[in-house]
Amino acid sequence: MDADPSTPHRPERNVDDPVTGRARMLAALAGRATDRPPVWLMRQAGRTLPEYRALRKDHDFLTVMRTPELAAEVTLQPLRRFRQDAAIVFCDILIVPEAMGMELTFQPGGPKLGPALRDRAAVEALRPVEAAQAFAHLGETLRGLRRELGDQHALLGFAGAPFTLACYMVEGGGSRTFSQIKRLLYTDPDLADLLLGKLADAVADLLIFQLESGADAVQLFDTWAGELNAVDYARFAAPVNRRIIDAVQAAGGTILLFLRNGSHLLDQGLDAGANGLAMGWRMDPEVVLRAMAERRLGLAGAPYAVQGNLDPIALFGPPASIRAKVQTLHRQMQPHAAHIMNLGHGLLPDTPIAGIEAMIGAVQDL
Amino acid sequence: MDADPSTPHRPERNVDDPVTGRARMLAALAGRATDRPPVWLMRQAGRTLPEYRALRKDHDFLTVMRTPELAAEVTLQPLRRFRQDAAIVFCDILIVPEAMGMELTFQPGGPKLGPALRDRAAVEALRPVEAAQAFAHLGETLRGLRRELGDQHALLGFAGAPFTLACYMVEGGGSRTFSQIKRLLYTDPDLADLLLGKLADAVADLLIFQLESGADAVQLFDTWAGELNAVDYARFAAPVNRRIIDAVQAAGGTILLFLRNGSHLLDQGLDAGANGLAMGWRMDPEVVLRAMAERRLGLAGAPYAVQGNLDPIALFGPPASIRAKVQTLHRQMQPHAAHIMNLGHGLLPDTPIAGIEAMIGAVQDL
Repeated sequence: MDADPSTPHRPERNVDDPVTGRARMLAALAGRATDRPPVWLMRQAGRTLPEYRALRKDHDFLTVMRTPELAAEVTLQPLRRFRQDAAIVFCDILIVPEAMGMELTFQPGGPKLGPALRDRAAVEALRPVEAAQAFAHLGETLRGLRRELGDQHALLGFAGAPFTLACYMVEGGGSRTFSQIKRLLYTDPDLADLLLGKLADAVADLLIFQLESGADAVQLFDTWAGELNAVDYARFAAPVNRRIIDAVQAAGGTILLFLRNGSHLLDQGLDAGANGLAMGWRMDPEVVLRAMAERRLGLAGAPYAVQGNLDPIALFGPPASIRAKVQTLHRQMQPHAAHIMNLGHGLLPDTPIAGIEAMIGAVQDL
Repeated sequence: MDADPSTPHRPERNVDDPVTGRARMLAALAGRATDRPPVWLMRQAGRTLPEYRALRKDHDFLTVMRTPELAAEVTLQPLRRFRQDAAIVFCDILIVPEAMGMELTFQPGGPKLGPALRDRAAVEALRPVEAAQAFAHLGETLRGLRRELGDQHALLGFAGAPFTLACYMVEGGGSRTFSQIKRLLYTDPDLADLLLGKLADAVADLLIFQLESGADAVQLFDTWAGELNAVDYARFAAPVNRRIIDAVQAAGGTILLFLRNGSHLLDQGLDAGANGLAMGWRMDPEVVLRAMAERRLGLAGAPYAVQGNLDPIALFGPPASIRAKVQTLHRQMQPHAAHIMNLGHGLLPDTPIAGIEAMIGAVQDL
């Protein structure tokens, strides 16, 4: 059917869904109640979807990420299958250390950064990064996505937090024990601060660049925050996270903070000044709500969003069990907080599509 | 110097140390204040020590564990180097699934149990285990150690908690995502309960057998408890842990509960009825003390011991930093709780000996 030429072009809108996903997501990010929680899934783009795997047969990970058409395509794939309210740009947190001068490779065992940082000279040699220059491809991807998504879906950007990036840089990749980075913290805290400070500058610039390029909000992923105890997190990671959050907000941006495996860091997470907290799946929503109430955060107090936190493994269960978990979480959160439905950790590669459908469907039905 | 024949034989006692390690450890386990905290290290026997590695050149892991002289030797090795107050018997939590009929092998990537449990028939086929028969070698090891240690050092036994054992049995070994065991919990909770119940019977029997064989107290290791959220822990793991704790105490025993990565399970840990909580290293001691105070547990209330919780990686740092961490933790705990100094997770294989010395030395100097 041709559009009536007298009406301006509007993106398609589902008649069952009078509020757009973008409006719903922006309201929740602003700490306001919504008709139902907006929903998206950490790692929704990539990994799990057959159409992503098909595309990856012809292009390696880094090529997909650096080619705006491909990165945009992968970002949009989940929105064609499921009814999420937000897209998150397909990218990787390790672009920052790479732009600072380290070599990034993706291997079957996980990402590698080389050579691992082990002394002051190596930290001092890291280049400052100007996002608009270093990540021009990402800016183009975001601008294209913004045009494509219109007002229908929110668009999210993200970056890794300094401590998390420092882990990869000092370990030279992933780690089980994080012995190298902790050795650095305990033996040369000044050098650790120098590294974390350089990363904070680069990450703040990257997040603001993403907002300027079309992202509605950003999420700061402190993936390895939970490897620090509360004292060390307060000493090393919290100050740089705070600096980034302040810089993003000073630029008019909205930012969510994710502290993976950070149940012991809940108080510090809530006190970080972000617009909301992305709860890890281990966090007990009741405990989070109690800690928010103590701080007068939430629908009855200062605007604050909470996101999460289904266990990604729940999506391996039968649809009825997934639906029950969504409903239980919604009943807990709805009266008290602007809630964004999500997982409490990234989608796992072998998650059944039916599990994702059950979760998103259950949210639509709330 | 010959002993005065008019005085009865007494085990050697350090003149600087008028209280024996055993007395100190038993007092703390009974929730009483001590002259200084007793100290031992999770995984102190094995792995790290050169004399252990030398012994392992001639004997594989399972042989060492099953040969009372060798197991006792490995248990005693750390006490010859460092001044711990307690020994923990050299053993492995996976002896229980093995005795139930699964095949246990230790491979470079970690332990394997085969074939992985995947259906009701496999769970029903698991054999009930009578500890005195199945683990006669362990009883002999403990009796020998008890004689050897006399009143100088406390002797600890241990077992893996049912959920932790079920993880290994259903995954067939270690796991990063625990997708198989969680799939079982979510798709067939009755079968999960059947498995967990069988394990609870075997574990309770094993712990009581260890106490009867000479252990002063036992620790229940729920190594993978932290892979469950608070709701699933309450549903699946807490009831069987409680059953074991009750059985051990009904037999007159003392039991500590360790919930690894369980900051989000703190309330349930304290409410489990154990004689004390072994804090994981992520737990914030201040938060633990606050939760204990709410329950009137500790020196000012009902007897309760808390153990831990230095980050094992702290021992990779310089001695001054290790000493400072021990002192800080002691200052936090001493006024409020019967505190057993320990790590908040097992000693890592490549921990520097100097780091262990610094920690134990710092405790002696408190």
